[in-house]
Amino acid sequence: MQNIRTDLAIEMHEMLMEAASEISGVTVKQEEKDNIHISRIAINTLKAQMQMGKPIGHYITIEFQDLNIAEGEEYEALCHVVAQELGALLSLKEKSNILVVGLGNRNITPDALGPQVVSKLMVTRHLLEYIPEQIDEGIRPVCAISPGVLGTTGMETGEIVRGVTDKIKPEAVVVIDALAARSMDRISTTIQICDTGISPGAGVGNKRKALDKSTLGVPVIAVGVPTVIDAATITADTLKLAADTEKAKSDSKLYEALSELDSDEQYAMLKDALPETLSGFMVTPKEVDLLIERVSKVVANGINLALHKNITFQDIDAYIS
Amino acid sequence: MQNIRTDLAIEMHEMLMEAASEISGVTVKQEEKDNIHISRIAINTLKAQMQMGKPIGHYITIEFQDLNIAEGEEYEALCHVVAQELGALLSLKEKSNILVVGLGNRNITPDALGPQVVSKLMVTRHLLEYIPEQIDEGIRPVCAISPGVLGTTGMETGEIVRGVTDKIKPEAVVVIDALAARSMDRISTTIQICDTGISPGAGVGNKRKALDKSTLGVPVIAVGVPTVIDAATITADTLKLAADTEKAKSDSKLYEALSELDSDEQYAMLKDALPETLSGFMVTPKEVDLLIERVSKVVANGINLALHKNITFQDIDAYIS
Amino acid sequence: MQNIRTDLAIEMHEMLMEAASEISGVTVKQEEKDNIHISRIAINTLKAQMQMGKPIGHYITIEFQDLNIAEGEEYEALCHVVAQELGALLSLKEKSNILVVGLGNRNITPDALGPQVVSKLMVTRHLLEYIPEQIDEGIRPVCAISPGVLGTTGMETGEIVRGVTDKIKPEAVVVIDALAARSMDRISTTIQICDTGISPGAGVGNKRKALDKSTLGVPVIAVGVPTVIDAATITADTLKLAADTEKAKSDSKLYEALSELDSDEQYAMLKDALPETLSGFMVTPKEVDLLIERVSKVVANGINLALHKNITFQDIDAYIS
Amino acid sequence: MQNIRTDLAIEMHEMLMEAASEISGVTVKQEEKDNIHISRIAINTLKAQMQMGKPIGHYITIEFQDLNIAEGEEYEALCHVVAQELGALLSLKEKSNILVVGLGNRNITPDALGPQVVSKLMVTRHLLEYIPEQIDEGIRPVCAISPGVLGTTGMETGEIVRGVTDKIKPEAVVVIDALAARSMDRISTTIQICDTGISPGAGVGNKRKALDKSTLGVPVIAVGVPTVIDAATITADTLKLAADTEKAKSDSKLYEALSELDSDEQYAMLKDALPETLSGFMVTPKEVDLLIERVSKVVANGINLALHKNITFQDIDAYIS
Repeated sequence: MQNIRTDLAIEMHEMLMEAASEISGVTVKQEEKDNIHISRIAINTLKAQMQMGKPIGHYITIEFQDLNIAEGEEYEALCHVVAQELGALLSLKEKSNILVVGLGNRNITPDALGPQVVSKLMVTRHLLEYIPEQIDEGIRPVCAISPGVLGTTGMETGEIVRGVTDKIKPEAVVVIDALAARSMDRISTTIQICDTGISPGAGVGNKRKALDKSTLGVPVIAVGVPTVIDAATITADTLKLAADTEKAKSDSKLYEALSELDSDEQYAMLKDALPETLSGFMVTPKEVDLLIERVSKVVANGINLALHKNITFQDIDAYIS
Repeated sequence: MQNIRTDLAIEMHEMLMEAASEISGVTVKQEEKDNIHISRIAINTLKAQMQMGKPIGHYITIEFQDLNIAEGEEYEALCHVVAQELGALLSLKEKSNILVVGLGNRNITPDALGPQVVSKLMVTRHLLEYIPEQIDEGIRPVCAISPGVLGTTGMETGEIVRGVTDKIKPEAVVVIDALAARSMDRISTTIQICDTGISPGAGVGNKRKALDKSTLGVPVIAVGVPTVIDAATITADTLKLAADTEKAKSDSKLYEALSELDSDEQYAMLKDALPETLSGFMVTPKEVDLLIERVSKVVANGINLALHKNITFQDIDAYIS
Repeated sequence: MQNIRTDLAIEMHEMLMEAASEISGVTVKQEEKDNIHISRIAINTLKAQMQMGKPIGHYITIEFQDLNIAEGEEYEALCHVVAQELGALLSLKEKSNILVVGLGNRNITPDALGPQVVSKLMVTRHLLEYIPEQIDEGIRPVCAISPGVLGTTGMETGEIVRGVTDKIKPEAVVVIDALAARSMDRISTTIQICDTGISPGAGVGNKRKALDKSTLGVPVIAVGVPTVIDAATITADTLKLAADTEKAKSDSKLYEALSELDSDEQYAMLKDALPETLSGFMVTPKEVDLLIERVSKVVANGINLALHKNITFQDIDAYIS
Repeated sequence: MQNIRTDLAIEMHEMLMEAASEISGVTVKQEEKDNIHISRIAINTLKAQMQMGKPIGHYITIEFQDLNIAEGEEYEALCHVVAQELGALLSLKEKSNILVVGLGNRNITPDALGPQVVSKLMVTRHLLEYIPEQIDEGIRPVCAISPGVLGTTGMETGEIVRGVTDKIKPEAVVVIDALAARSMDRISTTIQICDTGISPGAGVGNKRKALDKSTLGVPVIAVGVPTVIDAATITADTLKLAADTEKAKSDSKLYEALSELDSDEQYAMLKDALPETLSGFMVTPKEVDLLIERVSKVVANGINLALHKNITFQDIDAYIS
């Protein structure tokens, strides 16, 4: 999970939300729909970009209840919301060719979101080329790849994806990735979409790692879902709760000491203190397999509905088989 | 992972070690062999049983280096140590029939140790019955089952295993289980063996859950390997390191407050404070798949070598296929 | 796939259909519903049992189109048909306790139907015991086990299942198994249900292998789906087509020779001639993973709907998670 | 398994062997080593190329006994033979950069050979770039990718691989693929290596499909292992055996008719007659998972030993973890 330590996107979105309301050149819209909460932030000016610390572009967060369903109305409504938000950012011409990239290591369950989404996509580019007469109107040429991770391929993902886009020449790229969250509540209950791609170590400009318009030459939409939490988070959360319990006891020195640190100081302190060895550990829900299965189906079907016109869930099923 | 919260066996073993040296009726032996550390504790008297809080019996802990090998001399030496310790506890008659039980949920990787071990065993009972003439001397009738967990079967594991032992009438049962450890260093570097079986909620006497001589009617050897850590552990460990860092700063109230709590008080406090929701989370190494694969091969081959006479690693390979 | 050579149930059903119409003591009903064909045969008298070569009981075959959908109306209709037919055979009292047994080897995909179905069941027995107040009216106590196969456990499946039923004392057992078909068209397009259980080597009376009322002491419903084809089938089918092609050529001795054999003679000849080594081979659709996934979901939900009252597909989803 | 119908490489090798002995410009060497049979054919001249119907180059076939071992001397000897033959064809400069490509669909077991081999490789390119000081002398930069298949990516494999090689600029490419064999005995008992790459529909010149020096710009070594058999093969083999049995019966018209066709005519007739629907079916050993696991380990370690100098099996184990 190469990006997990560098890209706590969800916190950025949250911080963005707080900051956005007060900055000119930034617009914020919120919407509630079928128990789904949608936040849309647009950074419109270079000045706002500087203040926000994020590139000009659109940042969408879709929050929903625990995903304990995999079919039915509620589930389909969620897929349609994802499709709609994604479609709005993509603004595709008819017949334009799309490449979907599933980042992550398929053998580490919580990192396998990208490959899982790719496995559930309606991949159609070859069909439109070889048997166009059998393909319905409204079906767009879509291709997809799960390029693996640096540790298993020996190549930066950016190198592979650039190699493929150079040959395939898609009109846009959609990149899927698993994220780390600072809060347990986020796991599999949030989908983030932005049109600025993925640029790890932002500012540093590692061109081999970035997947964005500047490196791929075409618009790059990133879709991310938090699937693990940071070990420091657990510690900080637990400590906070411990402090609250301590509070009840009179004369608790621990409570006193903790209450003198604000939440960010505490997190920083714990992050620094985290044992080296812990970097090889991850914190996941026990039923992480099921969660990834379900949320990847939502993301995949959101993409399927966004890219192909007038298709139904049954059409998707028939194509996937 | 039903046992993980109730049965932190490894801590008990550690506490046992400390306590054992001072109590009469308890013998302790330690041995170092090929970079492998073996501790053998015997509780011999009822008085010692009371003092130790563990039933009369033998408790063996095998500690080794990071298991980054899956073949070769070091690996084979480790298998032989497991075989030897296991063999000593089993003290089998020739041709006696053994049932191996792999506890745990095969779909949650760190809990899948039991089923993984079972899948690597030389299962021979049916061969000795149907084609005895083709089976080598020294091969004992072994059968094996992975009964699943309460949440997926709706039945207590004890009910299933008792049902099977009543029909099969083995002369001994070997039970394999994944454990939770309090220390990250323990993950996949320790194998525990005891001849008192598994008795969750010790003392309470939940007969449907226990897997021991009193419930199964035959000797029960338990083999356990820590594969996850407790979320409270991470918090406690991190906090301790944080406190040490704080120490450097003069006038750190946090350090002062923390240093007033001893380690057990701290753990208890954090354990209590752990958010409810965290009970659904687990902390595992990222490469947990590989670790389980390797340590289960060691345990399986330890059992294979202990149960069948004069077999080689190549014989095992040939049987498994 | 232990049963594949001994239990070509689907042929028996077909032969049954032909024979049934002419025999007294046998009733046959056919029904067409939403593109689903249902045949129900009842063998009612001992005389009919002798003539049919099958025990007194009910034999239901559900045939449907290629299963290229996994949700939607058509899919749900199919689940309801399975539920209805199964429910009719089970005729359960309120609150009666059911054990579902998934036969087969989970590591050989086409044989994994049983374990796959079990993994998709609403298992509730433990919930009704430990947290009855949280469980909806209409939910029945269901438990389930995938006992593995002789080759991996060393025990006859019948021994394990009898051991478990002796402890659990269910009021009925539902057994799921993958079957071999003689025709490629059958693969994943037929579900068979009968209330006579599974009795391999019928007549021979291998009590350790049979799973029926006489061995388990309670009614046993068997549900089977063909997932592989017999290698002799492919040869016979191909040969027939080859002969037809030859026919066009005048003076084809091959056609002449083949046309002198009737279809059963041909099959018998080819079956006998099948190379020994072929017994280790199987013929499956390339997308067998997907097919097993889908048909096991239909069977599982058929069982879920049959066993629990007034539940919806969304309820099932919520329970499974 | 895109290549299976177009590229029955093993037959070509066999036919090559027969033809080679009589043609000038072709050299044939055979060797027996530790129960392993090695055939090396070199096509040296354009004239020989025309006569053989295969491009100028080297064709090596390694045949061995059933692979029922996964460690030990015999297994290691086999890995070394693969390494040696591969090394001879690669003739690498020190430090030259190699890309290994695992073709095939990872979700269809018998087609997953390529991805399985890739998962067992010592991938080192990134290590030599980011932490060169920690890497042993003799370790060469190796990267690897499993690009998926046309049906799941929508892109010709050749497009993806060319895209990646353009960016990575390896000095040679090793391509791994599963093959179909005409004989059951070949399954997992033969490894083929050639230095002419993979060119499906040879002659037709589909540049997007070919993986060879002309399309990738660098030498391409292809390594193939038969993992499935052709359905026509089973029919032909069975028919032949049936005919032999018939022979015993006097006046068998079938035997007479069959004996008039030679083996190639029979195969062609059956191939033509094979039902359309059969094209979606495959014939594999039941324990195909285990076979692929084992033979992929041999191929992977052959490559590991060929590419990196002075490494042991334990070194490989340590790297893979």
